[in-house]
Amino acid sequence: MALKAQVLYDFTAEPGNNELTVKEGETVTITNQSIGGGWIEAQNSRGEVGLVPEDYIELSKAFQGAGTTAPTPSGGNVASPDLSFFDAFAPSSTPAQASNGNDPWSVWNADSSGGSNNNNWASKPEGTQTGRSAADPWNSVPQGHPQAYQGPGAEFDEWDDEWDDKSTAGYAESELGESGAIQRGGTHSSSMKISLNKFPGFSKSGPELYLLCKQIAKDKDKLPIYVGEVGPVWAYPENQLDCIVADPKKGSKMYGLKSYIEYQITPSTTNRPVNHRYKHFDWLYERLLDKFGSAIPIPSLPDKQVTGRFEEEFIKMRMERLQGWMSRMCRHPVVSSSDVFQLFLTYKDEKDWKFGKRKAEKDETVGVMIFTTIEPEAPELDPLEVEKKCEQFSRFTKAMDDGVKEILTVGNEHWKRCTGPLPKEYQRIGKAIQNLSSVFTSSGYQGEAALTDALTAAGKTYEEIAQLVAEQPKKDLHFLMETNNEYKGLLGCFPDTIGVHKAAIDKVKEGDKLVATNKITTQDKSTMAKRLSTMSYSLQAEMNHFHNNRIYDYNRVMQLYLEEQVKFYETIAAKLKHAHSQFTTM
Amino acid sequence: MALKAQVLYDFTAEPGNNELTVKEGETVTITNQSIGGGWIEAQNSRGEVGLVPEDYIELSKAFQGAGTTAPTPSGGNVASPDLSFFDAFAPSSTPAQASNGNDPWSVWNADSSGGSNNNNWASKPEGTQTGRSAADPWNSVPQGHPQAYQGPGAEFDEWDDEWDDKSTAGYAESELGESGAIQRGGTHSSSMKISLNKFPGFSKSGPELYLLCKQIAKDKDKLPIYVGEVGPVWAYPENQLDCIVADPKKGSKMYGLKSYIEYQITPSTTNRPVNHRYKHFDWLYERLLDKFGSAIPIPSLPDKQVTGRFEEEFIKMRMERLQGWMSRMCRHPVVSSSDVFQLFLTYKDEKDWKFGKRKAEKDETVGVMIFTTIEPEAPELDPLEVEKKCEQFSRFTKAMDDGVKEILTVGNEHWKRCTGPLPKEYQRIGKAIQNLSSVFTSSGYQGEAALTDALTAAGKTYEEIAQLVAEQPKKDLHFLMETNNEYKGLLGCFPDTIGVHKAAIDKVKEGDKLVATNKITTQDKSTMAKRLSTMSYSLQAEMNHFHNNRIYDYNRVMQLYLEEQVKFYETIAAKLKHAHSQFTTM
Repeated sequence: MALKAQVLYDFTAEPGNNELTVKEGETVTITNQSIGGGWIEAQNSRGEVGLVPEDYIELSKAFQGAGTTAPTPSGGNVASPDLSFFDAFAPSSTPAQASNGNDPWSVWNADSSGGSNNNNWASKPEGTQTGRSAADPWNSVPQGHPQAYQGPGAEFDEWDDEWDDKSTAGYAESELGESGAIQRGGTHSSSMKISLNKFPGFSKSGPELYLLCKQIAKDKDKLPIYVGEVGPVWAYPENQLDCIVADPKKGSKMYGLKSYIEYQITPSTTNRPVNHRYKHFDWLYERLLDKFGSAIPIPSLPDKQVTGRFEEEFIKMRMERLQGWMSRMCRHPVVSSSDVFQLFLTYKDEKDWKFGKRKAEKDETVGVMIFTTIEPEAPELDPLEVEKKCEQFSRFTKAMDDGVKEILTVGNEHWKRCTGPLPKEYQRIGKAIQNLSSVFTSSGYQGEAALTDALTAAGKTYEEIAQLVAEQPKKDLHFLMETNNEYKGLLGCFPDTIGVHKAAIDKVKEGDKLVATNKITTQDKSTMAKRLSTMSYSLQAEMNHFHNNRIYDYNRVMQLYLEEQVKFYETIAAKLKHAHSQFTTM
Repeated sequence: MALKAQVLYDFTAEPGNNELTVKEGETVTITNQSIGGGWIEAQNSRGEVGLVPEDYIELSKAFQGAGTTAPTPSGGNVASPDLSFFDAFAPSSTPAQASNGNDPWSVWNADSSGGSNNNNWASKPEGTQTGRSAADPWNSVPQGHPQAYQGPGAEFDEWDDEWDDKSTAGYAESELGESGAIQRGGTHSSSMKISLNKFPGFSKSGPELYLLCKQIAKDKDKLPIYVGEVGPVWAYPENQLDCIVADPKKGSKMYGLKSYIEYQITPSTTNRPVNHRYKHFDWLYERLLDKFGSAIPIPSLPDKQVTGRFEEEFIKMRMERLQGWMSRMCRHPVVSSSDVFQLFLTYKDEKDWKFGKRKAEKDETVGVMIFTTIEPEAPELDPLEVEKKCEQFSRFTKAMDDGVKEILTVGNEHWKRCTGPLPKEYQRIGKAIQNLSSVFTSSGYQGEAALTDALTAAGKTYEEIAQLVAEQPKKDLHFLMETNNEYKGLLGCFPDTIGVHKAAIDKVKEGDKLVATNKITTQDKSTMAKRLSTMSYSLQAEMNHFHNNRIYDYNRVMQLYLEEQVKFYETIAAKLKHAHSQFTTM
């Protein structure tokens, strides 16, 4: 019996990947349901056969394949943390007693409408993971696949799952530039993908969870903050961690039906390489975001490929960006020393990885609870002082976001000109000079070989300059763009991070009223102020970390940029000098 | 009594020149008829008063102002040479006996339809002087004013005529570039303005006038041709003439109502400056074209101004181009030694000028008759050899014309880019870097002054580069364009010059038939072959002169261009190097 299915969402196949492009509303015939891993094989009306994400189609007959769970794209099968510590107050003033993970969100969701996303200055608000998969035409591959990132209770072996490089990051856009190169700028999401419905800690009333919690972190998890020359700072390790992302290798599974790229990551500590696919990076990103997102901006991973064009260039670019992302994480004293990050870099074998993975997914110190681990070695700050600082950071990050975006805009335009019309023009100048030289050669007049040779050389020089111009952006502008792109991503995380702080400030301001209405005790009120102070130290430490990195990064990238620009102009001058010398002095 | 007048042709006023813009069909009121010099003062319906060329309007009442001759724009008051020597054959085989100038053209005009213009590869054929004045919207000033360039019999004192800078050159186009600068390229006519109806010598059957003429030039006018290393060459003077065109001065007449620009021309021979207005250059051009046009390409004068915008820049540009034109004429051994050219450069006083002017206008050795003065010191060439040479020159000049136009096209595009979008882009890059520096300064973080200072300096460097880029074309591309523009003008003359030769070759080929039908004698036939040989030597000498100049000009301009380009890129590299040095090494 031929099984028919209805296509629910557009899906664009990645070339060379045995996938099948389908359109919403199309009817396909199921040819193989036992592919597994969220994929099924289908045939379209033109007889073409290929893989389609199974949650992109709806079987026409009631049918459940063995081992598949037929989830719907709107389902949010996110991790369900143990909520036993959620004894803080909720908007209903009824402490959430739920501790079994049975839809504890509804309590918070009610209050999270409009959430802290209001603080997000990104022009295009990011949807939640599952909400945008079908709507965004740029995302040609399944998003929020229900079988990936199962809750810790699920026994599904992620290590062996099938579809590669799932990206859950809400990238605002990803375009191919005129010149066919992967476009710089605008490819990173400008905000962290903090799913507002996902964690109580990120709902509008989120900070309360921490402000009034009774749980205290274990000593070994403590994150101290010291006051240094520049103000509050994180505790930095003696030797900064770093790693090298290299050697992308194509692997395949499902008897060659699906392929993936595996990267080799070698940390400077062990110098022992581990292998990871993009989906593992994405898993790490999700863990770091859950755990640290309230206190530390966790930038999105590099963009998902739009189409299969320029595959090699794409892999190279992704690797470079994964390297950038990993280096930035390595440089962060809190992130780099976390268990989950260390696991990612230094797991010994598959068993070790699986074990660590489950442990990380069960981590309870996530969301605003991260602040329970932070211990500033400094006197408590006045809430007014906290507010002032917070507003200053908000202003600065907003201004820098504008500045970075401006650089990306002009840089992108410059990139297009340098790789498009400008070299074409130099080429045409070169050709025109050479053509004239050919005409001159045909004159039949004696003794003009010196001129025609010199003209030909000059023409060729301009053709060489055309090539130099076209290739230069890859040598300098590329890095300037990448750095600014990274900062755009980082800065996009601040509205959420700062939003959490602002919500906490607001809650502390309500303190007297809450005491008066018996919602909290006087003791609670002073606890809240103390904890707000802790949050502020955390934000200040993070800002100082950010500033320090920013100064280093911009110094370095500007030096590199200008150095390459000097070389570029000097090379052109030298070439023209040589061309000039070939004309005879009269 | 208010005198009304009907406007016959559109006329656009030059700003600041007391002129009045009028439209065809408009009715104006004459406010002053005694202005003189071809102008009258009129008032339009909006009450605006200004000068209008009197032949652009038609008085509503029969009225003749004292001293005005009410000419019509279509009248061709060209010089009427003494035709007493026109005893050669004509198409009618009736030797033209007309010697009084009473419309001798009709005889030739019949045969000149379609004339040698067929050989002209210019896409836009040039009309005659008077034919296009009203039709061409680019010509905002009166063209072919009947009171200028009166025949030699007229007593009108040209020295004191009123309207300035009449251009009779048929410039194909004249545009203002996007950037507002006077556009390079396309501003010169690509053909000599040989009026086909004006001289029998230029009609299709023209060369016959010379091929069979009995008149022999006086010894003192002889133009010898020698055979040198490169082939036939003109006799070159020991010291090459040159001149400097400088010091443009604004003068005015008619009590300040009309203004004009007078240039100072100082020849290297006398070192004594003479003054000339554009109209005098134009008179010289007409004389040279009439006299030498069949044998020597006489390039058009620089373009007439389109509008009054950028007056200073326009005057500078015109002077530069007049200099280029004069230098080219000075470099030509035949042109520079001619009486009329010498008169222009070395007249002693007004009387001297007037006398010489009339004499030049009465010169009978014009058109193809110039060949009567040419005496090659070389054996007679076989007509087949002549044809081969002629075709070779035709091919070469056509090919070079294409090559030169290609350079002008790409150069013009490059000019626009370098003065328009490119510097704007560098400016925006500079501004973006400086903006980021300002944001960084506002961080409140300690110890980043070194970075922000360096960033500001780098940003300013890019603003300086923007300026360098925008100004560079004036320093190098300008000269490359001007040279190619000059050559475009020169090359545009060759189709006419070569056309005369081709017509002569055709006529000589007809020799046997003409003898058989008793139209010419056997003696005539061999005279024709001999004279064709003379024409060929003339063309070869001219081609060799052209090649020699071409090699010199392109060598020189390419050297200048590349030298300036080297300086340009070196300057940028040095500026960037300095900017780079301001970043701290980490």
